[in-house]
Amino acid sequence: MYIGIDVGGTNIKAGVVDGRGNLLNKDSIPTLADRPYNEVIADMAKVSISAAEGAGVSISDIKSIGIGIPGSCDDERGMVTLACNLNFNNVPLRSELQKHIKVPVHLGNDANCAALGEYYMLDEKPRNMIFVTLGTGIGGGIIIDKKLYTGFNATAGEIGHIMLVKGGRECGCGRRGCWEAYGSVTGLILSTKEAIEKNPESLMAKMTLDDKISGRTAFDAAREGDAAARTVISTWAEYVAEGVIDLINLFQPEVISIGGAISAESDMILKPILAFADKYRYNGSEKKTRIQIASCGNDAGIVGAAFLGNNY
Amino acid sequence: MYIGIDVGGTNIKAGVVDGRGNLLNKDSIPTLADRPYNEVIADMAKVSISAAEGAGVSISDIKSIGIGIPGSCDDERGMVTLACNLNFNNVPLRSELQKHIKVPVHLGNDANCAALGEYYMLDEKPRNMIFVTLGTGIGGGIIIDKKLYTGFNATAGEIGHIMLVKGGRECGCGRRGCWEAYGSVTGLILSTKEAIEKNPESLMAKMTLDDKISGRTAFDAAREGDAAARTVISTWAEYVAEGVIDLINLFQPEVISIGGAISAESDMILKPILAFADKYRYNGSEKKTRIQIASCGNDAGIVGAAFLGNNY
Repeated sequence: MYIGIDVGGTNIKAGVVDGRGNLLNKDSIPTLADRPYNEVIADMAKVSISAAEGAGVSISDIKSIGIGIPGSCDDERGMVTLACNLNFNNVPLRSELQKHIKVPVHLGNDANCAALGEYYMLDEKPRNMIFVTLGTGIGGGIIIDKKLYTGFNATAGEIGHIMLVKGGRECGCGRRGCWEAYGSVTGLILSTKEAIEKNPESLMAKMTLDDKISGRTAFDAAREGDAAARTVISTWAEYVAEGVIDLINLFQPEVISIGGAISAESDMILKPILAFADKYRYNGSEKKTRIQIASCGNDAGIVGAAFLGNNY
Repeated sequence: MYIGIDVGGTNIKAGVVDGRGNLLNKDSIPTLADRPYNEVIADMAKVSISAAEGAGVSISDIKSIGIGIPGSCDDERGMVTLACNLNFNNVPLRSELQKHIKVPVHLGNDANCAALGEYYMLDEKPRNMIFVTLGTGIGGGIIIDKKLYTGFNATAGEIGHIMLVKGGRECGCGRRGCWEAYGSVTGLILSTKEAIEKNPESLMAKMTLDDKISGRTAFDAAREGDAAARTVISTWAEYVAEGVIDLINLFQPEVISIGGAISAESDMILKPILAFADKYRYNGSEKKTRIQIASCGNDAGIVGAAFLGNNY
C-alpha cells in the first residue's frame, strides 16, 4: 500500500493506492497556504492518516508516501525548493512530514505525478510516453523506459517551455513565445480576447458581453457556428499540435496523452490536432506515435504521487 | 574489438575500435553512390577488412560491426529504410553485408553515432547527454541513462526539427521555422546572404564580391570589425541558443555538446550561446547543464558506430 498526496494551492488531497494503481480511498483538507509551513505539513499528515483509516489500512502497512508539489523539489534532499502557490521556499518537507508519519517520503512535481498516474492507469504500458496537461500553463511528464524522466537535477520535463514563436508572447518563464503562452488555456483565453476585439460583431463577442471570457467561450460560440470562434479554436489546436510535433520529433514515444481541463472538449480538438500532427511530424518510420486524450481524470496526481517511490 | 563504419555520400570510412573506445586503425574508400547497393555494400566489407588487417586484427576477433547511415534505418530488421545520399531505399544492409563478413551487424543514424562517439570519448561519462551537430542541417543524438535514446521506432532525436519560428523559413522536413532552418550552417549562409543584400556597403558585402558565400563569410568579416557581420553572428548564436534552451528545459542533461563544422569557430560562438542560455533557461535547480564544444572531431562517427552493438 502507498499513499499519494496531491498538494494544490486550495486543497491537499491524499489517497491510498494499492500496488496495481487502484485508488482505495481518498480524503482532502484545505491547504490554507498562508500559514507557516509546519502547519500545512501537519495537515498533510492528518489527511493521510484519515484517508488510510477510511480505507481500513494501518499506517504500518504503508510502504511509502509520495507528494506531488506545484513547483520544484529536490527529492534527494527531501526539500521543496520553490512552490509559489504554497509559499514554500526551501522547505524540508520530508523530515517535517516524518515527524508525524515515519515512512519513506518521496517528492515530485505535480505535473510529473499526473503523468505517472496516467501511465500506471493504462492497461498496456508502453516503454515511452509523454503526458501533456493543458491548463493554466502547459505541464506534463516524460516516461522513458517505464520510469519518470527527471534529468540530472530533477527538473526535466518542462514541456510547456519550448519555443514556438521567436519574439512572441511573453511567458512566465522569462522567455517569449513558449508553447505555454499559446497552447495553454491561458493562451486560448488571450487569443479569444484578441479575436473578440477584432470581431466586435461576432456571436462570440455578443455572447460574452456580460460574461467573463473563459477557456469555454470560443468552444461555446464555435458550437453555435461562429466563424471567429472557429478560427480561434483551429489556430489554438494548431499551436497545440506544433508542440506535440516537437515532442514526437525528439522523443518518438509510443503514446502522447493530452490531459487537463481542456480535454473535456476532446471532440473538437483531437481531430484537428491529429490531422495537423500527421501532416508535419518527421516521418522516418511506419510506426507512429499514438496521440490520445488522457483518460485518468483528477485522481491521476494522487496515484502518480503514490508511485513516486517505485520510480527508481 | 569492434568495427565502426561511417557511410557518407562521398566516402565510406571504417575503423577498428577497442572496448575502451580507442580507434586503432581506419581506412576509407569512395562511396560511388550511383552504383547498385550490393556493390556499395561489398565495398563496406572490403574497407572493413582492410582496416582490420592494418590494425593486425583478425575478423574472427570482431564482436560486431556498427554502421552509421545518413538517413533512417530499422536496426530490428537490419534495413536502411531511406538514405537519399546513398540512393538506399529499403535496402537489407545487414544481410547483404553478412554475405561478406559473418559477424553481428547493427545500424544507426549517423548523427546518433556521432553522439555515441562523443559520449564514449568523454573521460567522465554523464548519465544524460545531448550532442548537437551544426552542419548542413542540425542533427544529433540523445544519451539517456548512458544509452542512445532512439524512441520506439528508432527515429527519435531529430533535434533539428523543433520549431522556433512559427510560419518562418521553409525546412526540408515540410514544416516551417524549424531550428535547423536558422541554426544550421545552411541557415547561417542564408542569413549572411540576406544581410549582404540589406547592407551592400558593408565590408562583408565587399569581401564576397568575387567569393562564394560560405559559413565562414560572416565570421571572417566580423573579425575585421564589420557591424553587419557581427549582427549575423550574434543573431545566429541566439538561434542556436534558443534550441539549446528548449533541449535543457525538456531534458536537463548534465552535458550538451555542440559539434559540427562550425565548432571551429568556438571562440566566437560559445560565449554568446552560454550567456543567452544562462539568461533564459528554466531554472528550477542550482545544478545547471554544462554546454560545451564537442571535442571528438571527425572520428566520432566511426567510434560511435562501433559501439552501436553495446547500446542495448
